[in-house]
Amino acid sequence: MNLKDKIRSVMDYPKEGIDFKDITPVLSDPVAFKACIDQMSELVKGKEVDQVVGTEARGFIVGAPLALELKTGFIPVRKPGKLPSETISHEYDLEYGTDTVEIHKDAIKKGQKVLIVDDLLATGGTALASAKLIEELGGEVVGMIFFIELEFLEARELLKDYDIKSLVKF
Amino acid sequence: MNLKDKIRSVMDYPKEGIDFKDITPVLSDPVAFKACIDQMSELVKGKEVDQVVGTEARGFIVGAPLALELKTGFIPVRKPGKLPSETISHEYDLEYGTDTVEIHKDAIKKGQKVLIVDDLLATGGTALASAKLIEELGGEVVGMIFFIELEFLEARELLKDYDIKSLVKF
Repeated sequence: MNLKDKIRSVMDYPKEGIDFKDITPVLSDPVAFKACIDQMSELVKGKEVDQVVGTEARGFIVGAPLALELKTGFIPVRKPGKLPSETISHEYDLEYGTDTVEIHKDAIKKGQKVLIVDDLLATGGTALASAKLIEELGGEVVGMIFFIELEFLEARELLKDYDIKSLVKF
Repeated sequence: MNLKDKIRSVMDYPKEGIDFKDITPVLSDPVAFKACIDQMSELVKGKEVDQVVGTEARGFIVGAPLALELKTGFIPVRKPGKLPSETISHEYDLEYGTDTVEIHKDAIKKGQKVLIVDDLLATGGTALASAKLIEELGGEVVGMIFFIELEFLEARELLKDYDIKSLVKF
């Protein structure tokens, strides 16, 4: 199944000039959604993974099913204040200003092999911040996988220390 | 598997006096997470469902896998401004102030049978607001299912028009 054709372009969201890739038509189509998770799972076949980390909020939609498919646990990385127990946080730069992500301090056990999952690889800032959180807890980032990669943003340069896979490239 | 024992109590989150039910220990345990989705799926067995609606953000973590398990599509209900295409919104009352949820205008086709999924049934405000959005689009809410129900908050009174299931009750 060609998933690329199912992704909708929404112009000028979230701001003027941006061609936003909307995955909701994939999610609402049972066959396409299943194909998306199956194909992402296929891309990391053979990789040893203990935990899947997904980033709030769309990363939860692809990360949670992928964790179940890979028979691993699922760990959420969230925006500040959203996780109830003790957390560590990592701040990273945006085009204008900064953003922060958090993870539960007891989420990862030392030496666990972790796969980072998100729906979209844009500049790579969130993925890199998530990797730093995992490594601070003693986890090993064995890879990152994205449904969509915006290649023109060249995130692979920022993430050059990691094994990166993506299903659909724009 | 007894999932109730896997849920962690975090006292005084998000504010003093609240005993927050933290599902992250369930999610990070592959056997428990799979059991959670399997058992939720079992609770709605035999029900005809076209689309699963999950509410931002923890509702995505249980809703997306449940949609795949039930072989339906998945539709996100999100906080204002988070969905890229045209939306409708519904405002509802909180203890102090109001909150708003949104859905894509083209998310539901007239007559589609929709199951609302979330991790937690507390006062029921979000679930009711989600139901109103679905009904405004011509969908039929065939049920609501929650991983956890806080029975002392008596949400079933507010949601008395709907068929409600929950896996773990406190």
